[in-house]
Amino acid sequence: MTPNIPKEQWAQVIETNGGPISYKQIPVQQPGPDQVLVNVKFSGVCHTDLHALNNDWPLPRKTPVVGGHEGAGVVVAKGSLVTSVNIGDNVGIKWLNSSCLNCSFCMQADESLCPYAELSGYTVDGSFQQYAVANAAHVARLPKDADLAAIAPILCAGLTVYKGLKESGARPGQMVAIVGAGGGLGNLAIQYAKAMGLHVVAIDGGSEKGEVCKKLGAASYVDFMTSKDLVKDVKTLSGAEGLGPHAVLLLAPQEKPFQQATDYVRSRGVVVCIGLPAHAKVSMPVFDTVVRMINVKGSYVGNRLDTAEALEFFNRGLIHAPYKVVGLSETQKVFDMMKENKIVGRYVLDMTR
Amino acid sequence: MTPNIPKEQWAQVIETNGGPISYKQIPVQQPGPDQVLVNVKFSGVCHTDLHALNNDWPLPRKTPVVGGHEGAGVVVAKGSLVTSVNIGDNVGIKWLNSSCLNCSFCMQADESLCPYAELSGYTVDGSFQQYAVANAAHVARLPKDADLAAIAPILCAGLTVYKGLKESGARPGQMVAIVGAGGGLGNLAIQYAKAMGLHVVAIDGGSEKGEVCKKLGAASYVDFMTSKDLVKDVKTLSGAEGLGPHAVLLLAPQEKPFQQATDYVRSRGVVVCIGLPAHAKVSMPVFDTVVRMINVKGSYVGNRLDTAEALEFFNRGLIHAPYKVVGLSETQKVFDMMKENKIVGRYVLDMTR
Amino acid sequence: MTPNIPKEQWAQVIETNGGPISYKQIPVQQPGPDQVLVNVKFSGVCHTDLHALNNDWPLPRKTPVVGGHEGAGVVVAKGSLVTSVNIGDNVGIKWLNSSCLNCSFCMQADESLCPYAELSGYTVDGSFQQYAVANAAHVARLPKDADLAAIAPILCAGLTVYKGLKESGARPGQMVAIVGAGGGLGNLAIQYAKAMGLHVVAIDGGSEKGEVCKKLGAASYVDFMTSKDLVKDVKTLSGAEGLGPHAVLLLAPQEKPFQQATDYVRSRGVVVCIGLPAHAKVSMPVFDTVVRMINVKGSYVGNRLDTAEALEFFNRGLIHAPYKVVGLSETQKVFDMMKENKIVGRYVLDMTR
Amino acid sequence: MTPNIPKEQWAQVIETNGGPISYKQIPVQQPGPDQVLVNVKFSGVCHTDLHALNNDWPLPRKTPVVGGHEGAGVVVAKGSLVTSVNIGDNVGIKWLNSSCLNCSFCMQADESLCPYAELSGYTVDGSFQQYAVANAAHVARLPKDADLAAIAPILCAGLTVYKGLKESGARPGQMVAIVGAGGGLGNLAIQYAKAMGLHVVAIDGGSEKGEVCKKLGAASYVDFMTSKDLVKDVKTLSGAEGLGPHAVLLLAPQEKPFQQATDYVRSRGVVVCIGLPAHAKVSMPVFDTVVRMINVKGSYVGNRLDTAEALEFFNRGLIHAPYKVVGLSETQKVFDMMKENKIVGRYVLDMTR
Repeated sequence: MTPNIPKEQWAQVIETNGGPISYKQIPVQQPGPDQVLVNVKFSGVCHTDLHALNNDWPLPRKTPVVGGHEGAGVVVAKGSLVTSVNIGDNVGIKWLNSSCLNCSFCMQADESLCPYAELSGYTVDGSFQQYAVANAAHVARLPKDADLAAIAPILCAGLTVYKGLKESGARPGQMVAIVGAGGGLGNLAIQYAKAMGLHVVAIDGGSEKGEVCKKLGAASYVDFMTSKDLVKDVKTLSGAEGLGPHAVLLLAPQEKPFQQATDYVRSRGVVVCIGLPAHAKVSMPVFDTVVRMINVKGSYVGNRLDTAEALEFFNRGLIHAPYKVVGLSETQKVFDMMKENKIVGRYVLDMTR
Repeated sequence: MTPNIPKEQWAQVIETNGGPISYKQIPVQQPGPDQVLVNVKFSGVCHTDLHALNNDWPLPRKTPVVGGHEGAGVVVAKGSLVTSVNIGDNVGIKWLNSSCLNCSFCMQADESLCPYAELSGYTVDGSFQQYAVANAAHVARLPKDADLAAIAPILCAGLTVYKGLKESGARPGQMVAIVGAGGGLGNLAIQYAKAMGLHVVAIDGGSEKGEVCKKLGAASYVDFMTSKDLVKDVKTLSGAEGLGPHAVLLLAPQEKPFQQATDYVRSRGVVVCIGLPAHAKVSMPVFDTVVRMINVKGSYVGNRLDTAEALEFFNRGLIHAPYKVVGLSETQKVFDMMKENKIVGRYVLDMTR
Repeated sequence: MTPNIPKEQWAQVIETNGGPISYKQIPVQQPGPDQVLVNVKFSGVCHTDLHALNNDWPLPRKTPVVGGHEGAGVVVAKGSLVTSVNIGDNVGIKWLNSSCLNCSFCMQADESLCPYAELSGYTVDGSFQQYAVANAAHVARLPKDADLAAIAPILCAGLTVYKGLKESGARPGQMVAIVGAGGGLGNLAIQYAKAMGLHVVAIDGGSEKGEVCKKLGAASYVDFMTSKDLVKDVKTLSGAEGLGPHAVLLLAPQEKPFQQATDYVRSRGVVVCIGLPAHAKVSMPVFDTVVRMINVKGSYVGNRLDTAEALEFFNRGLIHAPYKVVGLSETQKVFDMMKENKIVGRYVLDMTR
Repeated sequence: MTPNIPKEQWAQVIETNGGPISYKQIPVQQPGPDQVLVNVKFSGVCHTDLHALNNDWPLPRKTPVVGGHEGAGVVVAKGSLVTSVNIGDNVGIKWLNSSCLNCSFCMQADESLCPYAELSGYTVDGSFQQYAVANAAHVARLPKDADLAAIAPILCAGLTVYKGLKESGARPGQMVAIVGAGGGLGNLAIQYAKAMGLHVVAIDGGSEKGEVCKKLGAASYVDFMTSKDLVKDVKTLSGAEGLGPHAVLLLAPQEKPFQQATDYVRSRGVVVCIGLPAHAKVSMPVFDTVVRMINVKGSYVGNRLDTAEALEFFNRGLIHAPYKVVGLSETQKVFDMMKENKIVGRYVLDMTR
């Protein structure tokens, strides 16, 4: 039975830098031989979508472009070469819409570094539409009974923090400090860290965030708004010897935390940069970096295996991302709230309204 | 047969910051239960010794202190607990004179990060004396027939670059850029890299240095004095795809190279900081670090296993460090040349004069 | 205040192969310069102690020898070189009583492979006595408020399974099959695996054991007594794709499981041998091993870092090892029950009676 | 300019198990959308081709099938989706003709473990024909100026031993024993090991093979035909301490070496099974495996990245595989010599005769 695919559909299209984003009807595309057409049911709205709208990253963006890269839906059509996905399957559309699967990076499973990668809602049309085309080899496989609204934020936010934790090299039983633990990414990071057997020192501002962090599983919380010596506090909370956490995850959208992490991370420890504050630099003294053998590295989105693993944690019920559902037509309102830092948790768009 | 050990000996003692270093007679010490007494035959002079003399590092130094940490000699006495080394054995005294072998870092074989580590010629008396005490578990084991003058520079300079190459994670067949390849450390690094199956892009200034680098085995040379686009040149020389080297070793005593390496290193590549320019910072843009998944790390001196391995490369005849021998009494002259950047290769002190 | 140390003490001494073990008074030893004297409070009884008594391993044993290698107690005296442990500290005596800390293996933190290692209750007197001498660098550090009876079994049984899980290379979120999950080691392994974020397929015989395994956190249970196709069952329970578990831990004291594991382990998976059935062989077809890239490896006791980590999981309350306390004088009774396979959980000896 | 592609071509087709192979004319196929058509110039003949002919492996084979999986040639046509390879490019056809690039194994770059993999000359038509179809993502990229006859054996034999050396985990400077070092795979393995900075103990039978091994770079040679104690000899030659090699590569087509390797490999060492003697088993005592922490693993053919790396060593002039060229029409003669163990080096088929 072939699903009934319309010719036209509703979409949110970025046409002018800075917005507003245009809610309009556009044609439904046909999938190519190695692609699928996905009837998107829900799509998360990520801070990256705002960067796409503003076009303020040093990365060229297509114009016009349908936004969105956290889409969960159902396959309704597929190209002739596609054997790994079937019509009716639940799938996810990620930031990485496709990669060549054939370059030096793809061959080592670093698809996100592929120079030919296409990015959903950025270099190709994304998930802020009812029917989106995506590369079959790259769509995320979602369980038959998945809650498509709840799972959407895992496709980018969940994946990103899970990848960062993997890249940190921290082993079960070790300590990881999460900077920005009270935010959307941070809340997910705490849960993933705990599910991975790690102990979390959560760092953020305000006692309310502290309570949330502890509820989600953080072993301790450092409030940068009240701490008199953040470096000392983090070290003290990282174990009896006060050597500091084995790893630090930098999720904060400010530059300052990038400068402090190398002070409190344990010798031989790893600082993972994930958040992307505009124009920020990470800087550390050479002497300390050398004699303490500190490691600072960047972690981008995960590859397909990371995606499957991040979803598996969610599927086992170990991760809960709070979210609110609004209609696709209300996307600009979500951006407006985002600009004012008024969002707690994630907004998820319902494509049917 | 017990060797004839005098009560007094000649030594070079740091007494005033900035020098000059004092050439004088001092008492010979007795080894403790877990120590050996080494009749030093030769000792290399390292740039670190000049920092010790100047006391310009953010690391407390003992005063007065006998300098030196590249000593090669013969065991002439040992403590009651020492079973692994015998009188008559050739051994080396390294920067790491001892560590506790019992802390979190020592237990994971990161002895150089031990908070209780003692440093030769810095926190304890070093190898600029005829009879030096050293921890038996930490002395390097040198072959019976070792050329003790030639092997001395391996004990610090060789070990340091070998460790850096290990820390880079570069695998045989991959490309490594060596910044400061024309200097003493750089020359050793080229040879170690080659012996490890790596391909070297040497970076330094001047055509003379370029010729030396190529002779030692570098696949190519970039002259920062004449290159119009260093980043592009390094990338072009790093393989057909122009992706840049898999790893970069920063041996230069200037700050600028610390800023460029993250531009030309391959995505997912590793930049290893080894050189210690005073007050230098390493800094990179967060955006690029994240989306290219770049890794910047510090590498200090190696542990005991690294030492054994670095020496093994030398013992197999794969490493040749050019050096000149002068008398122990001439140490200050060596420092004077060092200050004026007049040293090519390594100076090695003969303890008998 | 110096503790009051008697000249004589009670001990269980292996004097004849096969036993019975002799309960008698023997002199208290003095610690050497790098040793501590431990007033043992409790000692677990391990299956290895029975092998020591029977002298049926291909490893030479001292005679007579005080048995025991899971001793928890308090330091009451220490040698002149000992700085890392203080009188009054709670410490543990492990199978690895000492190692040279200086050979090729110790230098890479593989102390259990040291050719000069001394083994408690085997090559040196162990923990079945009230005052035991142990190498200061090797005693386990126990918290001030530790329950010394409860923690004793972690010192060998807990450590061994934790090390095996580390050696398996299984990452958080992956599946591990535990063969012999219903036994003493197995019960601990399930708990460690869970705390490390792993999912467990428990394998053993009988529904009673199955219930225990699931209560301890196993995701599923395969009963080899009722399963019609063990290989298929394990694969099916290891994930939607039926590829088999990423790793298998072999804790069973029989040979057969050693032959089946390579059939159900996932391609690229790791089979870790831990249990030591007498004279057993592990054997697998070359063709399958190659084309499925299977990895079979042995895991012995952990090193000092593994010990600290295994204890840390216990200290955080994540591991519960059921045990019964009996007097030191009743050791032979414990061996008798062990011979008859009548022991569930661990027996711990109280040194005061 | 489109190359002139005939409708019919010469091929060697396996039609009856055990052979003889049929030299006949068959139609030239058209490439699918993700495939290329390769004008094969030369193809190596591998021992695996004989297994394909005999159909004596526990792996289902297609019938009839064009043999061969070491084909070097030129792309003459390509499908509509192919962007990474161009008409006129030199490419290689490997054992792994294609994989799904989308399963759990492909996603972690273990394409050779893909359950949907197609094997050249086994499950799909291979390189013993003038025009072969191959998956574009899987063809090996050969340099413009490659000597296509010389490079052919690298595509399987070279790749296989290189992969095995990578899987061994041996680091530059360490010792690796190569069992069957005097054979075709062995000769390549010695050269790759040397180029990777490893030191080789070659093991084989006869003084003639010993001389070849040493000429190719082996540090030492053990002749199993004359050695009185092979285990001891290998250990003695593996370094001053006599601990045995860090890794062993098993390339021999007999079962016995599979039993000895675990005796002489260093504790913590790795035994890599590569050769596939029919019906062979690898077996070792559990006790030793555990207390020496020995690791036995299988290594199959490499992935695409391994292929590129293995070729890069060849392209740099570090690998020389002796070979003889005969016409495609003479394939059966090569098999006949192979059956009689009369082949030294590799036979390469010239497709033009």
